[in-house]
Amino acid sequence: MEALLSRLLDDKASDGEIARPAALLAAMRHGVLNGGKRLRPFLVLESAALFGHDGEPAMRVAAALECVHCYSLIHDDLPAMDDDDLRRGQPTVHRAFDEATAILAGDSLLTLAFDILSDVPPAAPREAATAAARQLELVRGLARAAGPGGMAGGQALDLQAEKAAPDEAGIITLQTMKTGALIRYACEAGAIVANASPADRERLSEFGAAIGLAFQLADDLLDVTATAEAMGKATRKDAAAGKATLVALHGTDWARRQLGGLVAQAQALLEPYGERAAVLSAAAAFIADREN
Amino acid sequence: MEALLSRLLDDKASDGEIARPAALLAAMRHGVLNGGKRLRPFLVLESAALFGHDGEPAMRVAAALECVHCYSLIHDDLPAMDDDDLRRGQPTVHRAFDEATAILAGDSLLTLAFDILSDVPPAAPREAATAAARQLELVRGLARAAGPGGMAGGQALDLQAEKAAPDEAGIITLQTMKTGALIRYACEAGAIVANASPADRERLSEFGAAIGLAFQLADDLLDVTATAEAMGKATRKDAAAGKATLVALHGTDWARRQLGGLVAQAQALLEPYGERAAVLSAAAAFIADREN
Repeated sequence: MEALLSRLLDDKASDGEIARPAALLAAMRHGVLNGGKRLRPFLVLESAALFGHDGEPAMRVAAALECVHCYSLIHDDLPAMDDDDLRRGQPTVHRAFDEATAILAGDSLLTLAFDILSDVPPAAPREAATAAARQLELVRGLARAAGPGGMAGGQALDLQAEKAAPDEAGIITLQTMKTGALIRYACEAGAIVANASPADRERLSEFGAAIGLAFQLADDLLDVTATAEAMGKATRKDAAAGKATLVALHGTDWARRQLGGLVAQAQALLEPYGERAAVLSAAAAFIADREN
Repeated sequence: MEALLSRLLDDKASDGEIARPAALLAAMRHGVLNGGKRLRPFLVLESAALFGHDGEPAMRVAAALECVHCYSLIHDDLPAMDDDDLRRGQPTVHRAFDEATAILAGDSLLTLAFDILSDVPPAAPREAATAAARQLELVRGLARAAGPGGMAGGQALDLQAEKAAPDEAGIITLQTMKTGALIRYACEAGAIVANASPADRERLSEFGAAIGLAFQLADDLLDVTATAEAMGKATRKDAAAGKATLVALHGTDWARRQLGGLVAQAQALLEPYGERAAVLSAAAAFIADREN
């Protein structure tokens, strides 16, 4: 995945492009090739593997999704948004470069994701129609997971939450959009690219939704309990900002119990796949227990 | 086009979305439904009409492209970029709302464009394979025209140009990417969606490239000669910023002659289509002679 991301972010212009400016590319690479955990690519690849697919198409879907995730971090870190100086222990893109370049690097990564997704190598002729239809579905799914009714919408709700604290339902909607939508898409996209049945796709989508909620809950817990050193970014920002989270609302004990329930729910969805789903099942547990 | 854009920017969540936050949608609508000239949609629709297509698919491609254009204006107007207060006589999005909302509204419009493009209604079964392949090509073409090797890359070159003035070749590359790529795509996309032959697609792409250059040259001329009132935005900004343009390099007389040459070149490309291309041909002339 690192090699593929690096190759997709090189200075070779694709057909239909002119030349990618060096400074812009450097900022894009800074925002992507930074030791990220690659959770979303991992989920795409493992979900695809569950249905016997481990080819280039899944790798490209995974890379496209990671570009979208990294774009969102770059924009989220901007002074007008969260105003963060550090990300994974390194200067954020607008600190390492400048604000304008960070905005454009984010825009470029988001755009590049759709280039990557729509450029999966052609399938065998007799499968071309269904392969193209699946690719379009992957494009549409990513656009909806990342757009105003998904991640970007969740960011907008997050801005509002700083002015008027949302209630419990509002917090869940915010988190489902802001971080949940891409994680859910990761799991569903793996099933789509592997040409899984509609029932299996739905099941993976639900699995993604459950671990998406678990991921955010674990994140909110870590903000309270972890050190900045372990996280590679500032912690206790939520409490300092008076931010409404489920942890702030119900406390850490409740959050840990809730987290256990979400993991159990996610793992139960994988039961029909037996041992084949062992890695995904372990991932669900890891997401809840992670230390950074 | 206005009705379609308004419908695409309503608060009805598509399948796969949650709810679009009201403030975000309002900012997106402010940035799109603002009396724009709709040049790019016009070019998509007229290029498609040249090959006998005037259906919903072309309308959607046109709307998607306009969303990308409007996102680029929203981000370009930001304080970290051009820092503009006015756009078409109205407050820019970050002035009417706030900076964070403007960043997210731009991000959302860019993402929505790919949702719109990948959601063209399905074709008749026996045409499904080629229709899906065409749609993917439209997605890929838009991503490349708008991404780091296209419009966003041009914006990055524009930032650099403020620090070190580019030479003539550098100015042309910058403009070909920053404004040319989307205009070229508009014309080529019309031919693609109308299922035109590869030769016709190439011809329309070259037509788009020529009028793209003409558009930017006319823009640079207007910056020198027009009033802020006629333009609905500040003028003489280029000269004030010491910006390198072909007009600054060669003067207004040269620019007017050059503009005439580009229009003639564009119109010559349309000759094989005779009277059917009358509207596109007039558009090429309009782009050079426009007063705002």
